Amino acid sequence: MSKHRDMRGQALEATAGNGLIDRRALLGRGIALAGAMGAGIGPAAAGAEPLAQPLADPPWSLEFGDRTPPYQMRSKFEAKVVRTLSNPKHEMRNSHARTPHHQLEGTTTPNGLHFTINHGGIPDIDPDQHRLVIHGLVKRPLEFTLETLSRYPMVSRAAFVECGGNSAPMFSPEPLQETVQALHGLASCAEWTGVKLSTLLEETGIDPRATWFIAEGADSPHLSRSVPIKKALDDAMIALYQNGERLMPGNGYPMRLLLPGYEGNMNVKFLRRIKLVEQPALSMYEARTYSPILPSGKAYRFYFLQEVKSFITYPSHGHALKGPGLYEISGIAYSGTGPIEKVMVSADGGQSWAQAALQEPVLSKAFTRFRLPWRWNGGPATLLSRAWDQSGNVQPTRAEFVAARGELTKPPPVLGFLNQHYNSITSWGVATNGEVKHVYA
Amino acid sequence: MSKHRDMRGQALEATAGNGLIDRRALLGRGIALAGAMGAGIGPAAAGAEPLAQPLADPPWSLEFGDRTPPYQMRSKFEAKVVRTLSNPKHEMRNSHARTPHHQLEGTTTPNGLHFTINHGGIPDIDPDQHRLVIHGLVKRPLEFTLETLSRYPMVSRAAFVECGGNSAPMFSPEPLQETVQALHGLASCAEWTGVKLSTLLEETGIDPRATWFIAEGADSPHLSRSVPIKKALDDAMIALYQNGERLMPGNGYPMRLLLPGYEGNMNVKFLRRIKLVEQPALSMYEARTYSPILPSGKAYRFYFLQEVKSFITYPSHGHALKGPGLYEISGIAYSGTGPIEKVMVSADGGQSWAQAALQEPVLSKAFTRFRLPWRWNGGPATLLSRAWDQSGNVQPTRAEFVAARGELTKPPPVLGFLNQHYNSITSWGVATNGEVKHVYA
Repeated sequence: MSKHRDMRGQALEATAGNGLIDRRALLGRGIALAGAMGAGIGPAAAGAEPLAQPLADPPWSLEFGDRTPPYQMRSKFEAKVVRTLSNPKHEMRNSHARTPHHQLEGTTTPNGLHFTINHGGIPDIDPDQHRLVIHGLVKRPLEFTLETLSRYPMVSRAAFVECGGNSAPMFSPEPLQETVQALHGLASCAEWTGVKLSTLLEETGIDPRATWFIAEGADSPHLSRSVPIKKALDDAMIALYQNGERLMPGNGYPMRLLLPGYEGNMNVKFLRRIKLVEQPALSMYEARTYSPILPSGKAYRFYFLQEVKSFITYPSHGHALKGPGLYEISGIAYSGTGPIEKVMVSADGGQSWAQAALQEPVLSKAFTRFRLPWRWNGGPATLLSRAWDQSGNVQPTRAEFVAARGELTKPPPVLGFLNQHYNSITSWGVATNGEVKHVYA
Repeated sequence: MSKHRDMRGQALEATAGNGLIDRRALLGRGIALAGAMGAGIGPAAAGAEPLAQPLADPPWSLEFGDRTPPYQMRSKFEAKVVRTLSNPKHEMRNSHARTPHHQLEGTTTPNGLHFTINHGGIPDIDPDQHRLVIHGLVKRPLEFTLETLSRYPMVSRAAFVECGGNSAPMFSPEPLQETVQALHGLASCAEWTGVKLSTLLEETGIDPRATWFIAEGADSPHLSRSVPIKKALDDAMIALYQNGERLMPGNGYPMRLLLPGYEGNMNVKFLRRIKLVEQPALSMYEARTYSPILPSGKAYRFYFLQEVKSFITYPSHGHALKGPGLYEISGIAYSGTGPIEKVMVSADGGQSWAQAALQEPVLSKAFTRFRLPWRWNGGPATLLSRAWDQSGNVQPTRAEFVAARGELTKPPPVLGFLNQHYNSITSWGVATNGEVKHVYA
């Protein structure tokens, strides 16, 4: 363990190589840390400046401000924080919008920046005309309006939704120089509120022959997916609210199926129909579009789970460190099979690891923010994060993942189409000039 | 306890008078509930209709939809869900915008609908030019940019912010016929992410003589408040993110002081200065504007805490029930002194009470959603909620509160000015036609 002497002559322990600091070392000894860390970069660990001249009075301190709007929007200075679009010309094909994780913090994805994928554009649905039908192998088929649904017992929960094709650029044999938004931006997390599907199935009754249900959307592609009935009786929800307000149009307004932990497209948006059946439908989206192909040429018929994953959002590609000193490594971890157990971080390419702090509360099938302070000495560094969930699953190394699932043989854009459910470790290489590259460590 | 016979002849227990149902009675017996509850209102408890004709194909099911925007907005059908404004003409005075709790669900207030009060309009601050200075009784005064602040260890937490004048209309001797938005809309809850003030004070050092700090905003009123130093060393935060993205302009962009549980105006927005001092400043906003006056004519000098409170958001004034049957009573509880312990609900004006379910996770100094199923028999009902926190505080009845704090002697708009920190029980009277009135039970 490397040692520094702080102003009080006390030893500051590092927890792993190349500058990773035990978070507890910070508590109650910031000054000491500053003294130990700040060598040559001014008085403060993170580059704060000594107070020189009196406070300036910029225009906004001298004049009456803007009006208060009924629905407030963010500052014009945030205009560059946007989702990146796969179909900006709105051609008649699918459209991806990716969440800018490298520009966000915490565990909630704001509604304006939640990722979306739509196969037929975004339908402009009148909620008063929309209906949800539950039929098929039920005792009594029922039709629900938004109003009748709202009278049933509701639940709220944080849950991530992730496209099965998220992280697909990492099937590339060479690391693509892309931001965390381009690599991992097809996952987001919100607080969803709605009615559990099990509550509605108690109203319709279930024919014992029913083993699956088919969910269908009201938009023009009528995307449909088959789901085992056991998920309906577990945590499936008809979601009506997203972070407290009605769903965003791109996220399924006025109602969507939420299947916590299952691949995004199964969380059918604009939900209009749930049919209980004896066999899966083998719809296009499950038999073709979302059937990952293996190196053998065989394909998974069904691949529901989004498995344990983590990635560092700061620092990441597109950021540039402003010289040596104290930084905080921050990232997101999540798993479709349960709460995150721990996240380990390395700054030396995986030679040594330190345990990151997990932001409480750690919730099942939701984003967990992890953080670890880091003293960058100005030399080369390779940053990795690796997550474990409480079900005992561990995020694979890239070598382990590629051995099992193969690498890309075709260039984008077919990437996400043939190769899905990528969840290995992501590595960032910090150069001596502070620039961050995507690397395979 | 009243009994109903369900289809299987089992008894359904009510937990309190006038239709309150034990939430556990619902589990695994929805049909039974429907059978017991649905008398005369169709097959389903909550008025769902039997499936009649085949699925309709509205326009949005037949045509290609709208384009995907870089920053998505809500549906045009939600345009009526807005904050109500106290100063819609943008006159040169303060501006209140209230959260429409009766139209929201869950525990998160979406950023567009978070309440705001600004005394000099909303400043249009360039984050790159903004500075935070910490000076006064410190060992070394420091100046922080948004960039240097972002390098320090961060924390995220859910926290409500509530104006000291929230609920002031309930000082009226007669119940005002207003929505929950007008009565209680000056409170909201978000996930805030930023740097703990204690972390920055470890950088500056603290002169032992410092017992208070003064926080000042960068907008033209330069609102300033004095805060005991012990709060700085407890959970005070310099908040930079609100529900994952940068703060909304009306909520303090680019940075605000967050003092969980303390009255809203102390959570100084557009924060530019923290000065450590030996005595409070007795600024206008603490010596005049936010000093609640008692019946004796004396005033509180300081009243920091927002005490334990709850209110039912559904059903509430402005809603109309569509006939007898199953509904869910839903509301919000919170306390500035710790996590919510329990919420009791009455449907008979306080003669009998049932314990509501609390949505997990129950977090300290954050909104907690409570819910309880209710079978409305079509007769008159008076709905109340009462909250307890884990510090042993209980929400007072209106009679208890008025005895201690008095009633209003002047009409609005001076209400919120002279009378603050109102936290008694709110009561809703349901008439036989389903309309909901504000009543004093």
